Amino acid sequence: MKRRSTATKISYQGEPGAFSEQAARSFFGKRCVTVARESFREIFDDVSAGKSVYAMVPIENSLHGSVPQNYDLLWKHRLFIVGELKLRISMNLLALPGTKLKNLAAVYSHPQALGQCERFLTSLKGVEINPFYDTAGAAKMIAMEGRSDAAAVASSQAAADYGLAILRAGIENDHRNFTRFLVVAKKESHPRRRPKTSVIFATKNVPGALFKCLSAFALRNINLLKIESRPLVGAPWEYLFYVDIEGDARSEECVNALAHLRELTSSYRFLGSYETGNIVHP
Amino acid sequence: MKRRSTATKISYQGEPGAFSEQAARSFFGKRCVTVARESFREIFDDVSAGKSVYAMVPIENSLHGSVPQNYDLLWKHRLFIVGELKLRISMNLLALPGTKLKNLAAVYSHPQALGQCERFLTSLKGVEINPFYDTAGAAKMIAMEGRSDAAAVASSQAAADYGLAILRAGIENDHRNFTRFLVVAKKESHPRRRPKTSVIFATKNVPGALFKCLSAFALRNINLLKIESRPLVGAPWEYLFYVDIEGDARSEECVNALAHLRELTSSYRFLGSYETGNIVHP
Repeated sequence: MKRRSTATKISYQGEPGAFSEQAARSFFGKRCVTVARESFREIFDDVSAGKSVYAMVPIENSLHGSVPQNYDLLWKHRLFIVGELKLRISMNLLALPGTKLKNLAAVYSHPQALGQCERFLTSLKGVEINPFYDTAGAAKMIAMEGRSDAAAVASSQAAADYGLAILRAGIENDHRNFTRFLVVAKKESHPRRRPKTSVIFATKNVPGALFKCLSAFALRNINLLKIESRPLVGAPWEYLFYVDIEGDARSEECVNALAHLRELTSSYRFLGSYETGNIVHP
Repeated sequence: MKRRSTATKISYQGEPGAFSEQAARSFFGKRCVTVARESFREIFDDVSAGKSVYAMVPIENSLHGSVPQNYDLLWKHRLFIVGELKLRISMNLLALPGTKLKNLAAVYSHPQALGQCERFLTSLKGVEINPFYDTAGAAKMIAMEGRSDAAAVASSQAAADYGLAILRAGIENDHRNFTRFLVVAKKESHPRRRPKTSVIFATKNVPGALFKCLSAFALRNINLLKIESRPLVGAPWEYLFYVDIEGDARSEECVNALAHLRELTSSYRFLGSYETGNIVHP
């Protein structure tokens, strides 16, 4: 897929400075137009209604797992995955320009972000650690209230958005914190290299049902990259499976495998073929 | 497993009034001794060190998905799953006794809880909706500060803990909000009815590896209840699989299936057999 640097609209969930916005700018370039929405449902609706060309959808975090709500939205909308990006989630200590580490009396952020930076934060002596509802929201508060004795833990994008300085970068304990984002659009993409393909399907809850479905791939030596089951809401004995495989859906072996899979499933949705995403360090 | 009503210690993560504490009281009876800890790691350490007999571990929420951190802790500790409970997550509007709905100027709670009650909250006219770092924390704040013009969205347990009244119960949009908890202990349990068995294993990332592993169950008509893959941290081409099957590990077919599975995996951990949990409405 071509990465555009002009006015392509991309919807994301969160406040300006959220990691989802950072993902959009990493993927589409700094000059793309990002549209902030409160809920994931709205970003899917934007693309369906043609208000935005793309939605930037977080689907999985290395520490916190999958985002099932977004799999459900993919299942319900007639949209396609056209790209993928793995964003290193890096936490930074942000403060008003001129604020020194030794002047800090308090640090604010979302409890999850505070937890991820526990080691660094406990090294600060005499500083109060305060939970706040949102990472970007904490940065905004420091800037709006002109707090020269406080700092926020948030993204570098939040620093740029609210005119804060980065006092310390990369203060998280575990540097293996990544969020995988999917780029969702109305039209299918045609990956040129490192293709992967995603499908969602349902099977009856009978012994061996999933085993038979996976035979469609195993018998053709197609590599499975991810699998996840989820009870189908409203249908107590049926299960949804989210599956990523290696390969382009237009290749002969994938065409055959997906046709075979459809014979074995009670419902099925093709989500698209796209290029395997790179890891991006913001 | 016998449910004890006397001083059995159960560790949970969160503040008093958290849903995990409610799960512990639902499972073990109101008179059990619950031990509040800040992190999931600590509740596993408590059981390993014999400080608590059990840990109450949230593993999956119907709206928000799995808690991979707890699967990782199960993988790393030599502990067993001995019970299961599905807790209906019900949100309530809590206020000081005597506060009326028409006197409310503000509502506080965790953004996720506020989002889950959006429909009810938008029906309240002229009331400010404020994000707070924690559901039980919002209830505590209302009680401590004696705020007669404000309410919190939290569990009924939080109402009991902080002396608040329930102004409205079950205000969430979607009543299919459940969290599945696992009861973890040092010693294996022997389920008497509706047994299920959990294992974690790793395979090499070669085509068909998972397919072969699942054949151990499919060839014996053993029903798969849940499957989830996760990249193994530090081993880029290996995957961990979390699998729940129907049956007791001591039954002949399970003994054979698990022996067969071990032949096909590069690492393996038996997590226990236990009774399938019931849905509990707090």
